[in-house]
Formats: sequence, structure tokens, C-alpha cells
Amino acid sequence: MTQFSYISHLECPKCHKHYDAGQIQQLCKCGSPLLVRYDLEKAKSEISKAALSNRPKNLWRYHEVLPVVQKEHIVSLGEGGTPLQPLPKLGAEYGLNHLYIKDEGIIPTGSFKTRGASVGVSKAKELGVVRLAMPTNGNAGAAWALYCAKADIQATIVMPLDAPLITRKEVYIAGGDLHLINGLISDAGKVVAHLVQQEGVYDASTLKEPYRIEGKKTMGYEIVEQLGWKVPDVILYPTGGGVGIIGIYKALLEMLELGWIEKGKLPRLVAVQAEGCAPIVEAWKKGEKESVFFENSTTSAFGINVPKALGDFLVLEAVYNTGGCAIAVSEEELLESQKQVASFEGNFICPEGAATFAAARKLREEGWIREEELVVCLNTGAGIKYLETVDIHGVQILQPGDTLNAKSSSGNGGRE
Amino acid sequence: MTQFSYISHLECPKCHKHYDAGQIQQLCKCGSPLLVRYDLEKAKSEISKAALSNRPKNLWRYHEVLPVVQKEHIVSLGEGGTPLQPLPKLGAEYGLNHLYIKDEGIIPTGSFKTRGASVGVSKAKELGVVRLAMPTNGNAGAAWALYCAKADIQATIVMPLDAPLITRKEVYIAGGDLHLINGLISDAGKVVAHLVQQEGVYDASTLKEPYRIEGKKTMGYEIVEQLGWKVPDVILYPTGGGVGIIGIYKALLEMLELGWIEKGKLPRLVAVQAEGCAPIVEAWKKGEKESVFFENSTTSAFGINVPKALGDFLVLEAVYNTGGCAIAVSEEELLESQKQVASFEGNFICPEGAATFAAARKLREEGWIREEELVVCLNTGAGIKYLETVDIHGVQILQPGDTLNAKSSSGNGGRE
Repeated sequence: MTQFSYISHLECPKCHKHYDAGQIQQLCKCGSPLLVRYDLEKAKSEISKAALSNRPKNLWRYHEVLPVVQKEHIVSLGEGGTPLQPLPKLGAEYGLNHLYIKDEGIIPTGSFKTRGASVGVSKAKELGVVRLAMPTNGNAGAAWALYCAKADIQATIVMPLDAPLITRKEVYIAGGDLHLINGLISDAGKVVAHLVQQEGVYDASTLKEPYRIEGKKTMGYEIVEQLGWKVPDVILYPTGGGVGIIGIYKALLEMLELGWIEKGKLPRLVAVQAEGCAPIVEAWKKGEKESVFFENSTTSAFGINVPKALGDFLVLEAVYNTGGCAIAVSEEELLESQKQVASFEGNFICPEGAATFAAARKLREEGWIREEELVVCLNTGAGIKYLETVDIHGVQILQPGDTLNAKSSSGNGGRE
Repeated sequence: MTQFSYISHLECPKCHKHYDAGQIQQLCKCGSPLLVRYDLEKAKSEISKAALSNRPKNLWRYHEVLPVVQKEHIVSLGEGGTPLQPLPKLGAEYGLNHLYIKDEGIIPTGSFKTRGASVGVSKAKELGVVRLAMPTNGNAGAAWALYCAKADIQATIVMPLDAPLITRKEVYIAGGDLHLINGLISDAGKVVAHLVQQEGVYDASTLKEPYRIEGKKTMGYEIVEQLGWKVPDVILYPTGGGVGIIGIYKALLEMLELGWIEKGKLPRLVAVQAEGCAPIVEAWKKGEKESVFFENSTTSAFGINVPKALGDFLVLEAVYNTGGCAIAVSEEELLESQKQVASFEGNFICPEGAATFAAARKLREEGWIREEELVVCLNTGAGIKYLETVDIHGVQILQPGDTLNAKSSSGNGGRE
């Protein structure tokens, strides 16, 4: 009989120490995040990708390579199976014959943080966690609070006062233990660290628990499965904490081991950052293995405003090992791309996702991406969560009884 | 060889006149909306529901019973295949053993209007439409503007000044021809009517084009397929214009004709309204076939603030013919349900969707729904589009350096 999960243990990618996955673990003693390992050899001999075909299209279809051992511990709102859609009009504009969007805005809570929350909260429940805490710039806290509500886990969420109001409301309506701080996410992090140390609360901070990577990696499985078990040539990912790109790279290696994809060239993974916060890009340009704290970081794409990521060395490893690159785009470029994607293709994406399109355009212009290559831009959230990135001007205000003509410019009303 | 679509013609449900589906049609000459008819006998002999199993999980998997004749006219952002999830904790609270949510918030544009937009815009493109216009309270206009952008159709969208800002921004970023009116949706309707009459623009107002029902009906196909081709006992639907409930009823009748579901009892369809706008409920109580204009209507669930629906007679027919009912809930009840669904089950739903949960609870208390019945509440949109329905109060504001203890109530900060 096959196993529901083939999880075997946790492993430190730095010092290679092993840890028991049946117990609560946070960071390695050496300070590195831990990675989940599976008995992939056994899994390969017992399951095939064909077994997946009749399963529901949520991320739990990959349960053999997810960490939850007992099915009843799964906490799911039906997350995953997000659209992978060709963008022919925008591709023509960019000079790309095969441009795709992987649209993670089409998911519960409207952001890809949901994948990490579903797997992270499920595993926390399996491990007996009753209370967890995390600092957040917004979307992750919202997702974890909602999944914790379903799991009956108390969630203490600390976010800066200037985090988006919508994410604050999500935590609140979920009944989460919400705290606002008149400071940065690093100040929120200190509040959480104190709570973890003093009270033994489970630390759900990015990469301080090993399981959200497992949720995020399912984006990699999905992209490949949706392309008929073929890998694209390039995947562009908006990189803040970098959990997604680490996860996608991990998924590619696992699929190779499982024999689900053919040995050969992996997709070139591109870490996209904003010019106002580009520590990974700086490190990549110098060929460094780790990044340096990026001072005074700023960008409207708040999800990628991470001056120094705990998993920076894993992000850089993914980029180097796949022949990828790291690239920064300006605020103007990313906001222009957001508008262009919506007006060409109808996808209202978030500014972080928009950064990947701006980067794809630049890399095509530079010749780093070729016309015939299959390119996937990863949009990490719904534009509707980012009300403030769209400025409206010049819209006509009509009074009852006013009319429009065919050119729609002759209304009698004023301008807003 | 099988056909991509088995569409045969359009039919008036009132006077039964037929119309050519290959030409642009709006209302019947008698003033009624038109319904799309298919050669279901032929379809039954040529296709089976088993053929669906390997198709993508978007709404176009049902293309044989959708109106688009040529596949290349489809305008898709990957809409449909929304989660149908059991809600065991909330079910226990309500005394329902099999309570489900069909969560239409997990869809491009964050609202079920997307289904109508995808099918409506695709068919408009197939019919050669280059410009359309519609009045909207927000979500429909947003969805149509985004799909029209993808289809290269100019979309003139007229919405009241007090429609939600987010939907205005969606139209704007899509490059739609956006107009705001200092009045009600009925005033917006007059602007559109003038444009349609004077300029020959395609009228995309609710039920004035026959195809958005076809998009909405796919919710019915999906619910039944997701339950393993079994029908639930009760489906509760938040009813404004009523296109969804009309569509779900149409889908049930089509599936019967196709032999995809067994003859027997249909699900009892429940039209849920807000007490502040309950014309269908008033009509149903009196056993009337049509509703009367509901004066001075008001509700925070703006999507169901429709004082007199053009398709009211079709909504009432669906309710009567399935042994369903119509029920109104108060503002307090629907907002309390919104909070309860999020804090019990993690789904942040819209106030319209919340009304169906308040109704399910009431109908269970009254004994109209029995404990063992399979009940589906239809949530029509993402809560994140309704920022203003969640009021936050009593949240602590910390200063950098403050700490929390395990009871999380002793922070040193003030209250917001």
C-alpha cells in the first residue's frame, strides 16, 4: 500500500544535520532554515504521475511529496490549481512567442501566501500546535490567520501600521490575535521573537518553520504538470523572502528524482526585485553566495520589500544552478507593466507580479531570453488587494439625464 | 465528429418566439430576456459526461452546452472550477451534517460576474461586436471591462459614484471607457439605453444579452460534477438580478435532458435577499409570478440591491418548480454570518454570500432544511472586494520595543 506522505526527515542545507519531522522544529542549530526530505526512491517505485490525473486540482493532489502524514490533518480552502494561461497579445508586444502567466491571484485570500499557509498550518495542526505567532507585511499574516481559524489554532499576527488595510481586516475577521506596530516588520519580528522565547509559542516567521516552502513548491509541480509534464525555458519570480523560488527549485529537483520530468536542462530561474530593494541582485552581480542588508529599502510592491532574506543563499543557489539571473526593475516599469497586462490581457495583477513582466521585457530586449522560448511570469497576488497602486484621473462624472455619444467624450459632466 | 457547441437557437421563455443565434439579438420583441437552446438530443447521443474527466477545470470544459461555436473565439482568464468545500465546524453550529460552500470568490476578478463576462464577451467577439455598453453597481462592470480588454472590444461602463472604488479601478486599469454618474444604477441604465439607441452599441445590460446566463449556469454543472454527478438537496443563492439562480435551474434541466443526472427530485433552490431589498421574497409569499418594484431599497450587500429584476419571473419559476423558497435576512444577520464563516472556516466571503449562510441557519431552525440534507451555500465574491463591510475596533497599537505576553492582552501600546 502506498503512503499518504513519503516524508522522512528534516535536513539543514548548510551543515546537513538531520532532524525528526515528527517533532516541532524551527531553525537548525547553525541558524539555517531546514528543508523537508522525502523518501523519493520509495515514492518513485510506488507511485507515478499518472495516478494524479483524477485527483482534485488543488495543491493536495501532490500529497505524497507534502509533509502531512495523516489526511485528516489537512486544512484546506481549495487552494491551488491556479490558471497557467498564454498571453499572446502581450507576448507579441514583447517579442515572445510563448509568454505565460501563472496567476496566483486566483486562490483563497488572493495571494500565493495561501499555499504556504495551507501546508504550514496543516503540519502545525498535525504536530499539536495550539498557538503560533508571526510578523508580516500583510498577505502572509492574512492567509495564516484564516487557515488558523479553520484549524482552531490561535494566531498572533503582528504587522506594521502601514501594512495594507485589507490584510489587517482579513486577520480581524478571522478572529486572529491582531497587533499593529508603529514601526517596520523588523520591529514586529522582535515582538514575535520575545513571545516565542518567553512563552513557547510556535514561530511561524518566514523560513523559521520548515513547511511553508513545501506549500510554495507546489507552484513548481503545477507549472510543469499544466505544461503536460514539460519544463518551461524560463520562470520569472518576484523575490522578497524568496520562499517561492526556493520551493520551485526544490520541486524541480524532486520531480527529476521521481522521474516525473526528463533529465536535461532545468528552467532558468530569474529572481526579480525592485530597484528600491535589490539585495539579491547586488549579490548575484558580484557572484556572492549571500546577500548584504539593503539599507533604506522602498517599493510600492511591499511583498518584495525584504532587505535581507533568511534564505538568500538558497535563492542564489537556485539562480546559479539553473543558469538563471537576478534583475531589478524600477517603480515606473513595474507600475506600467501592471497597467499593460490588464489592458492587453485582462489580468489585474499585483505590483510584485508586474515586476516579472517588466523584467521579461527587459531580458528579451537584452537577448537573454529568446523569441521562441517558453516563458512563465509568476503573479503572486490579485491586483484587487492593492487598491492604492491604481490612480484614477480624468474620469467623467455625469449627472442624471446626461448622455454620451459614440466617441464617449461629450458627456456634459465635469471631471473628477 | 462531435460539435464544439450544440447551440441551435434563442427562444423567448414568455412568448416562445425563436431567434437566430448567429446574429446579434438582445431582448425578445415582447420585452422578455431570451434563453439559449441547444440540440441536447444530438448532444446526448454524441457526448457523455465521462468525456469531461481529462479537460481543464475551467468553465469551458462544458463547451458543448455553451454558445461559442468556434473555440478560437473563447476569451478566458482560467475562470471556473471554484472550490466546493465542506464546512464541518459551521455545519455543527447550524445543526447541518453536510453544509458546503461553493466559493465563487476564487475566480479572476474575485466575483462570479466573471463567468457571465467570459461567456458573454466570447460570444460578443464571435458575433463581431466591437463596442458594448453596460450600467453596473461595480463587479459586473469590472469583469466585463477586463474580458473586453483581452477581446479588443471597447467597453463603456457606467457606474454610480458610490459603487465600490475597487471596481472603478478595475475598469480603469483595463482601459475601459469608464463613466461615473451622480445617481443610481437606474440613471446609469438610461445613459446606456441612449447610447444603444442612438449609436447602435451592443447592450450588455443584465439579461439584455442572452449569453451571461450561459456563463452563470456553469455553477450548476460544477456543483453537480464536484459532488460526483449527484445533486444536492438545497442550493441557497443570493438573489439580485437572479441570473445565477436562473442559470443553475437551466443547467439542472439540461443535465436531465442529457442524462447526466438521474430523473428524480431536483435541488430545492432558495432565493436569498436582504430585508432592505426583497422584491422576490414579497412576490413568493403571495404566490405571484412576477415581483413589484421595491421602493427605497438599501443593503450593504450592494450586489443584491436590485429593486425589480428583468428576469424576476424566471427566478420565481425556478423557486416554484423545485419546491424551493425565498427568504430575507437582516443586515445584522448577514454581517454576523460573514464574520462567523471567516472565524469558523477561514473563508472571507462577501456580504451577499453571507446572506445565504444566515438564510441556511434560519431555514434549519424552522425545520425547512433537515439535519441530514446536503446544503450548498453559494458565495458570489471575495470578501477582499468589500473592505468597508469589516469594521475593526479594539486593536492594540504597539511601539517598537513593546512586548506581548501569552494572553496577548498586556502590550504597552494604546488602542486604535
